[in-house]
Amino acid sequence: MQTRVSRRGDVDPFIVMEILRLAAQAEAAGRHVIHMEIGQPGTPAPEVARAALGTAMGQGSLGYTESLGLPALRQRIAGLYRDWYGVDLDPDRILVTPGSSGGFLLAFTSLFDPGDRVGIANPGYPAYRQILKAQGLEPALITTDLADGYQPRPDQIEGAGLDGVLIASPANPTGTMLDHDALKALIEAAERSNTAFISDEIYHGLNYQGRCTSALEITDNAFVINSFSKYFSMTGWRVGWIVAPPNHIDRVNKLAQHMFICAPHASQIAALAALDAADELEANRATYSRNRDIVLKMLPKAGITRFAPPDGGFYVYADISHLGDDSLTLARALLDEEGVAVTPGHDFDPVRGGSTWRLSYAASTADVEEGMARIARFTERRAR
Amino acid sequence: MQTRVSRRGDVDPFIVMEILRLAAQAEAAGRHVIHMEIGQPGTPAPEVARAALGTAMGQGSLGYTESLGLPALRQRIAGLYRDWYGVDLDPDRILVTPGSSGGFLLAFTSLFDPGDRVGIANPGYPAYRQILKAQGLEPALITTDLADGYQPRPDQIEGAGLDGVLIASPANPTGTMLDHDALKALIEAAERSNTAFISDEIYHGLNYQGRCTSALEITDNAFVINSFSKYFSMTGWRVGWIVAPPNHIDRVNKLAQHMFICAPHASQIAALAALDAADELEANRATYSRNRDIVLKMLPKAGITRFAPPDGGFYVYADISHLGDDSLTLARALLDEEGVAVTPGHDFDPVRGGSTWRLSYAASTADVEEGMARIARFTERRAR
Repeated sequence: MQTRVSRRGDVDPFIVMEILRLAAQAEAAGRHVIHMEIGQPGTPAPEVARAALGTAMGQGSLGYTESLGLPALRQRIAGLYRDWYGVDLDPDRILVTPGSSGGFLLAFTSLFDPGDRVGIANPGYPAYRQILKAQGLEPALITTDLADGYQPRPDQIEGAGLDGVLIASPANPTGTMLDHDALKALIEAAERSNTAFISDEIYHGLNYQGRCTSALEITDNAFVINSFSKYFSMTGWRVGWIVAPPNHIDRVNKLAQHMFICAPHASQIAALAALDAADELEANRATYSRNRDIVLKMLPKAGITRFAPPDGGFYVYADISHLGDDSLTLARALLDEEGVAVTPGHDFDPVRGGSTWRLSYAASTADVEEGMARIARFTERRAR
Repeated sequence: MQTRVSRRGDVDPFIVMEILRLAAQAEAAGRHVIHMEIGQPGTPAPEVARAALGTAMGQGSLGYTESLGLPALRQRIAGLYRDWYGVDLDPDRILVTPGSSGGFLLAFTSLFDPGDRVGIANPGYPAYRQILKAQGLEPALITTDLADGYQPRPDQIEGAGLDGVLIASPANPTGTMLDHDALKALIEAAERSNTAFISDEIYHGLNYQGRCTSALEITDNAFVINSFSKYFSMTGWRVGWIVAPPNHIDRVNKLAQHMFICAPHASQIAALAALDAADELEANRATYSRNRDIVLKMLPKAGITRFAPPDGGFYVYADISHLGDDSLTLARALLDEEGVAVTPGHDFDPVRGGSTWRLSYAASTADVEEGMARIARFTERRAR
């Protein structure tokens, strides 16, 4: 006898898993693999964050926190909005989540009912699509173009029959950012269509061209999702936050009580201290900035010229269709021939992903330099 | 303008929050409150667990783990099934979750589609009802009786038109346990009705009368949900696990990748070490056992005689209807007059909860002793 299965639970596999498996195999066989497929910093949580947790572990029992999160942490997160954006934010609108993943689950649950349509950029972060499907919602893929930095245009949102729309800036896989006017135009288009607006701001703080704009600078009626994973270098700690619209925060708090109880207490303590680690975090950002310069200098030399401007985050999303093969096939070949792992576009764009790679420059500068040299060797051979 | 809201996100408030608020107020005013409303150990994570994390924080970057969880942890969890139940379990069927909460979200998503009916005991853990509702599923309350230890009978499952049924043993709020034959009868009733079976085993290890039976001793087709929160004293760490039926594990793993990415890495490291903390954990259990003896001796002296046998966990669910008032009113009065916080039954049983209290004996022995003496004083006054 087999146990029954749901339809909504049939989510797509991650194509990149194939590359991760092959890379692990190659490393097990003693090969030096450069990891440009990764979506996380190689750095640990800031030293002060780890020290704070070490101290706390000797003092309290670290039981459940309030479902909203530690009050001191919520207070400090509100301060971040003042420091980064000049926004005066009531800490009572902040709920600490188990990573941005928890934020998406809460926002979608509080906003949408089964069958509702939620617009997301294609290409985009694969979990958007799959979490929406797993919740019985309909992901409505908005086909975006290189010319628009792979970001949706207002005319793709207004009147599109969407119950909600989710925008990421800086985006994954592209790193492109929306400036204040562009974000405002999208929010206004959504408002005119009674379309709920969710702003994924998880890469904020990792910007190299211009500053990041928060949806909170424009409206109080958006869900803002953020996390300590990227700028604060705490992926594995699973701690993030949402800022909810005023009419949602009590609902979201009750949902969080039931769905999560609370974000991990230890991670909340570490996160609170990480907010004081500006020197270490800015040093990390300087490394990414150097890595990005190397990638931007080397890509044209490797004959790769069609990519969106990577304003923030630590990715470049590049068109490699001129290499004459599917992106997964090419990623396998690159790994096999040169020992560089990259992410084929399929996970981000189920339609056109066969023509793109996502390159991460979150690795060490030495690795990024060596990785780009190897990619140039690979493309040179293919171009012949 | 207000942001749209979903229907499924309208979950019930926790009635106990009112008691928590009043207790915090009383404490802020300098009163000594005995906490018998709490659902968690007062002890911290085992010392070896905190030490292991302290060491790990100095060594690695603690980034994302595999979505299944750390291989060493899954191996050791499999060993627990051998040690506790004599079951030979393939570690590949284990996925480490962000607490049992994450386990419920995954199991429900992989098993059920919107509109499906899932049977749960009434009274029961409130999050079952609310998570089901928040997922667009229909919680089907199974009215249970004191005579059955508040556990469902097979005849309440077979032919009841349920897509799934969730059973907890030891249960919350009652602490009652199902022995091997009783659990087997429920599983077989579910199998005959093509009803998926989910076994909540989060209180396993905290048993005082007889041993806990795992659904895995009876079938491979149940979802088993467990956690490091209770026996391992790690509530705030948000780390648990599920054992999935063979035809579900790959689905559940893909869902977990998208919905959670992974359970907190730091918590997984602490959990792995906690599996070696038998001495400390058995000492905690001995404390609960003593506390339980005190409660069972004192309840009749307080005139409270109608409660299910609390075989495990750290709760007693007692009928206090003879005190002539609603359980929330009585809980408010108890707190006001004697400074003891208890949980009124409403959160566990929306129909009959006005006649019951849940008393937790997870506090210190001195507090439990004092709390029971105060409750006896309170009931004596009411009985006059």
